[in-house]
Amino acid sequence: MTDIFLTILPNLVITQDVVAATTKDVEDAVNAINGDMGMLWMLLSGILVFFMQAGFTLVETGMTRSKNAANIAMKNLLDICVGSLTYWLVGYSLMYGDTSNGWFFWSGLMQGEGADLFFQTMFAATAATIVSGAIAGRTKYSTYIIFSIVMTALIYPIAGGWQWQGSGWLTELGFIDFAGSSIVHSVGGWAALVAAFMVGPRIGKYVDGKVFSIPGHNQILATLGVFILWLGWFGFNGGSQLAWGGADAIAASNVVLITNLAAAAGGLGALVTTWIWYGKPNLPQTLNGALAGLVSITAGCGNMSAIGAVFAGLIGGILVVFSIEFIEKKLKIDDAIGAASVHGVAGAWGTLVIGLWGIDGEAGIGLFNGGGFGQLGTQAIGVLAYAAWSIGLSFIILKILKSTIGLRVTEEEEIIGLDLSEHGEIAFPGKRERG
Amino acid sequence: MTDIFLTILPNLVITQDVVAATTKDVEDAVNAINGDMGMLWMLLSGILVFFMQAGFTLVETGMTRSKNAANIAMKNLLDICVGSLTYWLVGYSLMYGDTSNGWFFWSGLMQGEGADLFFQTMFAATAATIVSGAIAGRTKYSTYIIFSIVMTALIYPIAGGWQWQGSGWLTELGFIDFAGSSIVHSVGGWAALVAAFMVGPRIGKYVDGKVFSIPGHNQILATLGVFILWLGWFGFNGGSQLAWGGADAIAASNVVLITNLAAAAGGLGALVTTWIWYGKPNLPQTLNGALAGLVSITAGCGNMSAIGAVFAGLIGGILVVFSIEFIEKKLKIDDAIGAASVHGVAGAWGTLVIGLWGIDGEAGIGLFNGGGFGQLGTQAIGVLAYAAWSIGLSFIILKILKSTIGLRVTEEEEIIGLDLSEHGEIAFPGKRERG
Amino acid sequence: MTDIFLTILPNLVITQDVVAATTKDVEDAVNAINGDMGMLWMLLSGILVFFMQAGFTLVETGMTRSKNAANIAMKNLLDICVGSLTYWLVGYSLMYGDTSNGWFFWSGLMQGEGADLFFQTMFAATAATIVSGAIAGRTKYSTYIIFSIVMTALIYPIAGGWQWQGSGWLTELGFIDFAGSSIVHSVGGWAALVAAFMVGPRIGKYVDGKVFSIPGHNQILATLGVFILWLGWFGFNGGSQLAWGGADAIAASNVVLITNLAAAAGGLGALVTTWIWYGKPNLPQTLNGALAGLVSITAGCGNMSAIGAVFAGLIGGILVVFSIEFIEKKLKIDDAIGAASVHGVAGAWGTLVIGLWGIDGEAGIGLFNGGGFGQLGTQAIGVLAYAAWSIGLSFIILKILKSTIGLRVTEEEEIIGLDLSEHGEIAFPGKRERG
Repeated sequence: MTDIFLTILPNLVITQDVVAATTKDVEDAVNAINGDMGMLWMLLSGILVFFMQAGFTLVETGMTRSKNAANIAMKNLLDICVGSLTYWLVGYSLMYGDTSNGWFFWSGLMQGEGADLFFQTMFAATAATIVSGAIAGRTKYSTYIIFSIVMTALIYPIAGGWQWQGSGWLTELGFIDFAGSSIVHSVGGWAALVAAFMVGPRIGKYVDGKVFSIPGHNQILATLGVFILWLGWFGFNGGSQLAWGGADAIAASNVVLITNLAAAAGGLGALVTTWIWYGKPNLPQTLNGALAGLVSITAGCGNMSAIGAVFAGLIGGILVVFSIEFIEKKLKIDDAIGAASVHGVAGAWGTLVIGLWGIDGEAGIGLFNGGGFGQLGTQAIGVLAYAAWSIGLSFIILKILKSTIGLRVTEEEEIIGLDLSEHGEIAFPGKRERG
Repeated sequence: MTDIFLTILPNLVITQDVVAATTKDVEDAVNAINGDMGMLWMLLSGILVFFMQAGFTLVETGMTRSKNAANIAMKNLLDICVGSLTYWLVGYSLMYGDTSNGWFFWSGLMQGEGADLFFQTMFAATAATIVSGAIAGRTKYSTYIIFSIVMTALIYPIAGGWQWQGSGWLTELGFIDFAGSSIVHSVGGWAALVAAFMVGPRIGKYVDGKVFSIPGHNQILATLGVFILWLGWFGFNGGSQLAWGGADAIAASNVVLITNLAAAAGGLGALVTTWIWYGKPNLPQTLNGALAGLVSITAGCGNMSAIGAVFAGLIGGILVVFSIEFIEKKLKIDDAIGAASVHGVAGAWGTLVIGLWGIDGEAGIGLFNGGGFGQLGTQAIGVLAYAAWSIGLSFIILKILKSTIGLRVTEEEEIIGLDLSEHGEIAFPGKRERG
Repeated sequence: MTDIFLTILPNLVITQDVVAATTKDVEDAVNAINGDMGMLWMLLSGILVFFMQAGFTLVETGMTRSKNAANIAMKNLLDICVGSLTYWLVGYSLMYGDTSNGWFFWSGLMQGEGADLFFQTMFAATAATIVSGAIAGRTKYSTYIIFSIVMTALIYPIAGGWQWQGSGWLTELGFIDFAGSSIVHSVGGWAALVAAFMVGPRIGKYVDGKVFSIPGHNQILATLGVFILWLGWFGFNGGSQLAWGGADAIAASNVVLITNLAAAAGGLGALVTTWIWYGKPNLPQTLNGALAGLVSITAGCGNMSAIGAVFAGLIGGILVVFSIEFIEKKLKIDDAIGAASVHGVAGAWGTLVIGLWGIDGEAGIGLFNGGGFGQLGTQAIGVLAYAAWSIGLSFIILKILKSTIGLRVTEEEEIIGLDLSEHGEIAFPGKRERG
């Protein structure tokens, strides 16, 4: 009898262990796969955000003069080239307090941080590139390079750390900025405003108190650029979920859906506004409206209902038209493509709107859906903090640059165009062809 | 003795239960993960389809006059802006008999329908945008807006429901249209034909019985547009698998593969046809041929062998050249970019070809591979149903618009170009630059 | 007593079996899902690589004369149309010794090879399209067609099989070319050099011993093209991991990360080089530098640290500037867009650099990180083998074509431009508009 038990009992124990182990295996396998799917989504999102650099290039060249087109292309190329290197070397470590991918880059790459570093790098390059359009047509290339380096190595990473590092002071306050209406866009937009003011207006923009429009040379390139930015924004916002699988897959999908709704509402808002105000529906402003709609949902795309996103975008699209007119005609600051309005003003609006009708799952956290003033106040603090930081540092750096190498090309150089004066070539040498 | 059994027996039972539970866990985990992968593929496909809007904009502007370029950009922007909103508000519910994402949008977004609604929205916007190119250069912007709204809110969703709602009457008949050769493209294409006919030809197109060609202003933009459309089509067709994982992953991959083969064959077909007919290989027709190849495989990409797809695309590419010539020279309808031929005619062909050499897994369902006339008849019914619906409704709506706000701009407005007359600006203001 | 054992014992056995089966289930499920994720990554990568065709079209048209733009578009369209068909029919079988997707294409598509065949097809089309830019402006279209077919059906597949077939002679040697610096780019680049030499320079390029620059007509299209190529390269290199899941997901992510770093360093390298050498930072060369950076990391992106990739790209970007000047001014070969330098020279460099500071996991395999001369020698053999093969076969085929249908258009045809002479139209008919 007893010897039979000696065979049964160990078997039983083994069985129990194996079952337990198996259950553990399933959990581990599911976690590993969710991790891999999340990495795939982040990497693909980063690739989409990279493409936004092409969108910015087209919007900025299309909306400005043909004699400065090559210069703008060179500025945007510089942003991604220098930005990728400086953010990898310095920015990432500074922002996430993580040196594993930064100063000690070798080790980093052995630790599977690739997708995250790649994704974050594209955000830094975006923050830098916002400035280039505003100061088009009169800024020294060498000056721009230094400013771009400081932006991706210092201004953006420190500001980003306040919230996205995980335990930054704004995170502690309960501030919400899902994908960077403030952290990326308003930081870039306010810097653009300061830069446009410090560099001064283009020759012929303000003559004897009159304001002259300097139309862009190719609205179709600008339109293509906006479509590319819109496309990239699905990765910019959706990828900020930083994961895929289960609830994250549903959440990221909804982020993409409402990002599109907000962009659509923003474009429509500007289209209708210009139709009423100018008498005809205006293309450049409609393009800016769509971009403003995207910026307006960037902070709240994880905390907004579809209808909430539509109104956030719609108001952003209307706002941008008035903001562009105000900055150009009242403040008399020559922001060549309206970058300060699209990224700065709409960025602030997109951050605040969470405090107005934002949601957290089923619960309302905004003023108009039962959330009281709490969240709105926190959002306002964040908006002001990022504005102060960006305006302050941009001013100091540009002041230093102005009193050293200077900000602006000479009058002759500006008149012949930066393509020839700064790069010794022109973008469209049709006339000069030989052979 | 007995007390030992009292310890063994429950153990055994528990063990059995845990094992059963574990097995169940594995199944559930696999299903959940497959669902998440499917959502990722649909979302990414929807993002690719969104980009087709940029492709349409470039093809339409590139193949038409520069004085109307901004107007075409405004029409395409409107399609995605208005289309995204109306389809979300009305179309989706109407098409899928599901109000959870429609009228009651809040709830919808809490239910993980994001990826599907996003994907379907892009299809609606595509159906609408097909019309804009055909009527370029002379149509009132306000009129186009109303038509575009009706298209995305009414014409397309109801037609789509016949087949894609799941239990529509065409589904019951056994009709096959995997990704929308008929449902999206022919519905858009026939509406474009009716619109081009009702609006009438551009000034200078037909003078004293002679037919004059009005060349597009930028074939490179048109070429880029076709590459973007080709790219987006991988999502358009591949994403229509609506799932990823196991057999779905293999099926969706093959859909993408044969979509590319059909496009290649279509481009080649048009290239060779024009070389023989015109004496030289023609770029605009080759571009239309590639698009026709894509439209020709859109219905059958889930029911076609590789070689079958090649011939479907090849014939589609040849067909489109003759169709464009026929509509322009014989029917004397001024379809500015050949939209009716590319989307309508090739769409009908792509739907019918399933009845000629379509397959269902290993089995042939077409006339030429042992399937008899059954499927061909069913496909023909679908083709006719969608043609009748699209032509009928478009005609009624355009008739109403004609007798109310009118379809066409004035002669002077047309001559100076819609950019100036409808939008008060021009797309390429090179000449007018100052400063 | 005993009857109780009769109930317990089988239970135990069953339990053990079920547990074993369950454990097996988990392993199978994980493998299946990893396979599906790998297929998704490869398919998406292939879609990105497809888009590179648009990038090549824009770079080549932008960097050459407007009177040949439509011809270049037609050549690039041909590459993808003919390439997709010939590689599917012949190339794939030839390269992978697998006829399941080739000569017997029907069967192939029932075996889930779709994603792989699609991905590989795009590589073949890339190899072919590299040649088109170098010989722009004077080559017969019919001649180009034949060369393009031979390239995708013969030259590239056989060369590719040496390494990527799995048991090719270079694989046996231990040669490393992860994504094709040599196999795709140098094969295409050397063919471009031979073709540019055999076709001869454009009229007006070399007059009385003087070298004249023939500037491209649109640097913004070229810039957009480079951004699109850069984007597609993430799929080109990242997708070459051929899998996703676990270590593959981390590896592929790092491939994408260091691909971006190398491109950034390459662009910066060329920018600085031209600034020092020409006195001003030059746009076309910076664009070529970014592309050279990408080519330089294509072979080593799976065997390079981040810092190693930066230096590989940086040197590639500097190298390309000197190489372009050398081929144009010293060799007096008119490579219209510098394809031989960007793809041939940088491709060779990118293959050799693995032997200088390449890594294999943690271990150094290069000369400068303790690997000795072994790997460097092997890399050199591969570089020479691909150069010899590409130069040899290109020469023979072009020699045959020259003595039969001829390589070059007539002088008048070249002067009026290939758009009119070869295609009977022009790309930008602004002047000719009527109506």
